Amino acid sequence: MFTVGKQLPGTLGRTGVLSTPHGDVRTPAFVPVGTKATVKAVLPEAMAELGAQALLANAYHLYLQPGADVVDEAGGLGAFMGWRGPTFTDSGGFQVLSLGAGFQKTLSMDSTTATADDVIAPGKERLAHVDEDGVTFRSHLDGSKHRFTPEVSMGIQHQLGADVIFAFDELTTLMNSRGYQIESLARTQRWAERCVREHERLTQERADKPYQALFGVVQGAQHEDLRRQAARDLRPLGFDGYGIGGAIEKERLGEITSWAVSELEEDKPRHLLGIGEPDDFFAAVEAGIDTFDCVSPTREARRSRVYTRDGRFNLLQARFKRDFTPIDETCDCYTCTHYTKAYLHHLYKAKEYLSATLASIHNERFTVRLVDDIRASIEDGTYADVKADVLARYYAS
Amino acid sequence: MFTVGKQLPGTLGRTGVLSTPHGDVRTPAFVPVGTKATVKAVLPEAMAELGAQALLANAYHLYLQPGADVVDEAGGLGAFMGWRGPTFTDSGGFQVLSLGAGFQKTLSMDSTTATADDVIAPGKERLAHVDEDGVTFRSHLDGSKHRFTPEVSMGIQHQLGADVIFAFDELTTLMNSRGYQIESLARTQRWAERCVREHERLTQERADKPYQALFGVVQGAQHEDLRRQAARDLRPLGFDGYGIGGAIEKERLGEITSWAVSELEEDKPRHLLGIGEPDDFFAAVEAGIDTFDCVSPTREARRSRVYTRDGRFNLLQARFKRDFTPIDETCDCYTCTHYTKAYLHHLYKAKEYLSATLASIHNERFTVRLVDDIRASIEDGTYADVKADVLARYYAS
Repeated sequence: MFTVGKQLPGTLGRTGVLSTPHGDVRTPAFVPVGTKATVKAVLPEAMAELGAQALLANAYHLYLQPGADVVDEAGGLGAFMGWRGPTFTDSGGFQVLSLGAGFQKTLSMDSTTATADDVIAPGKERLAHVDEDGVTFRSHLDGSKHRFTPEVSMGIQHQLGADVIFAFDELTTLMNSRGYQIESLARTQRWAERCVREHERLTQERADKPYQALFGVVQGAQHEDLRRQAARDLRPLGFDGYGIGGAIEKERLGEITSWAVSELEEDKPRHLLGIGEPDDFFAAVEAGIDTFDCVSPTREARRSRVYTRDGRFNLLQARFKRDFTPIDETCDCYTCTHYTKAYLHHLYKAKEYLSATLASIHNERFTVRLVDDIRASIEDGTYADVKADVLARYYAS
Repeated sequence: MFTVGKQLPGTLGRTGVLSTPHGDVRTPAFVPVGTKATVKAVLPEAMAELGAQALLANAYHLYLQPGADVVDEAGGLGAFMGWRGPTFTDSGGFQVLSLGAGFQKTLSMDSTTATADDVIAPGKERLAHVDEDGVTFRSHLDGSKHRFTPEVSMGIQHQLGADVIFAFDELTTLMNSRGYQIESLARTQRWAERCVREHERLTQERADKPYQALFGVVQGAQHEDLRRQAARDLRPLGFDGYGIGGAIEKERLGEITSWAVSELEEDKPRHLLGIGEPDDFFAAVEAGIDTFDCVSPTREARRSRVYTRDGRFNLLQARFKRDFTPIDETCDCYTCTHYTKAYLHHLYKAKEYLSATLASIHNERFTVRLVDDIRASIEDGTYADVKADVLARYYAS
């Protein structure tokens, strides 16, 4: 299901093609996120038009609403949301702990501030509990109690029916002690084994459905020996590909990712979960990452922030009131070829829906195109030039 | 600029073609509303695809944000918002009083409850004041003080540059006394004369711009003699067409409209302001109305309510959780041909942007198509059958 193309000399990077029952994904590729079976404010046709090759949705959110059984009855995630191309779902492992527990946003914090194994938002009751069998958590929507185990996550993801699904893992943070990381990693390994068994059982039971590729998730936080061990331990389980998950400091993204990747099979695809800034893509591609997903393009758009090759800016700034040029003269997206910054500024001031729609289309196009350009540059041997040019321009301001 | 087509026998109704510099509108036609230079949550291409022939925006809202001068600099309303077809703007007369003053929603109330000439929401300071020269009001956005006169409204509407613009009139309600209505109507007539003069001056001053048609507005509330007099008084002013405005009880819509229409020239177009329910269309078309505008299709959509030929329903109802059929099997809109009620139910439950987008597309298509069907039925002589069928089905439930 994955064909390696051209190598990026002197690195772990490469191009490739990820084949799924709903079409191919040429890699490296950015996979836009449609958390609740919708890319926020953007129709699926617009996502296809801007070059999205696949979309990623969220098992935790879709389990709570509308329920994975509803999506199954609808014919699976793609049919439910009107997206014909390949789909991914994550396992819910991240969300049951990060949303359910009311975690502080500490995943990328400086590890020198780490103090405790149990990270709880001040004044909030702990809403999630991890034991050997799984995670008990409370819904962030209504506080109702739920339980995810590896088997439950596989069941949900089979009902959602995405082409690429992920093993259920335990999320740790940079604030957890090394001792806890070791303990957690051993549990994630046992959960991975259970995910594989349940996936095989469900694949047989639902033999009429298109094949779903299962990716194992490499944890291990900031520890080289743990990351490498985790990757080596997953290999015998026969996963179709891998996700690199958990807490990664931005400054060490390439280094930490490369530890895991260098222990994995070359002919299997590697997905980096939740990463989406320009410099991250270059670091991760060099470390051997094939696909990315991130909510940043739409989240930033809703905050009136747009990406350009010359940096990011906020469309609510007063200087755009009479700026009758597009967000980016060189951008080929629907928004830049049809609307001015003055119009977008107005839509944000007026709190109109189309502000999010138009800026999201632009930001998704920016991100998809940037990773497409990285792929093209590996293919034609201009990677170093493209990287130097993009980073110099984007981070100049 | 208006060509009368076929008459609807025994009524004031007819088909026609309203010609503008940005294209023709075949009438009767429903003109969707894009208050702030955007049909809420729907891209202009989607509006064209669903059959919208023209859009109507709001002078009051665009004056406050982004400012009519900004729209002018952008090349006018259509260019600013990416809509290539004909555009209308209302005069702001309704909004400066209804929004600015914090009016209670009394325009369609039973006149038997009328008590006072000054309608003020309880506990709210009166925010608008009418004098001979114009209206002083406070912005509903930030409370800042502004003043509209007939000349100011014409200036704003020339800057906005819509193909059809309306004279600045005073809004009265069914709660105003007959004495006040008479006084107000005389003032609206004097304002109409000033609008025509200013419009002629601006048309000469901006001779490089496409011609804008100016419609006079017939007020007179529920009084037959006042409505007839108002219409007769407007005729000598040479308007390109007319709007029927002000307080109209739903039950008497056809009757009241016909008083005004029967006093107007046959060869000039008549627009009914702010009307949009199925039975209203039939009553108004028979009374000689050519075009309609209304915010209902998008407003109802944001409240999860959708129109079908068998009545209106709320997509948040639990019975739609597993309903994998479209809103309306017989509807040809993008939403009905691509999505199920189960998906829309989910989008509303998840509070996703696309709920408003998809339901608005459907509701706008429903409304545009209904008036299109009325037009076709006048042309092919089946009006009575279409009316009987539509009303029996829509109001059966």
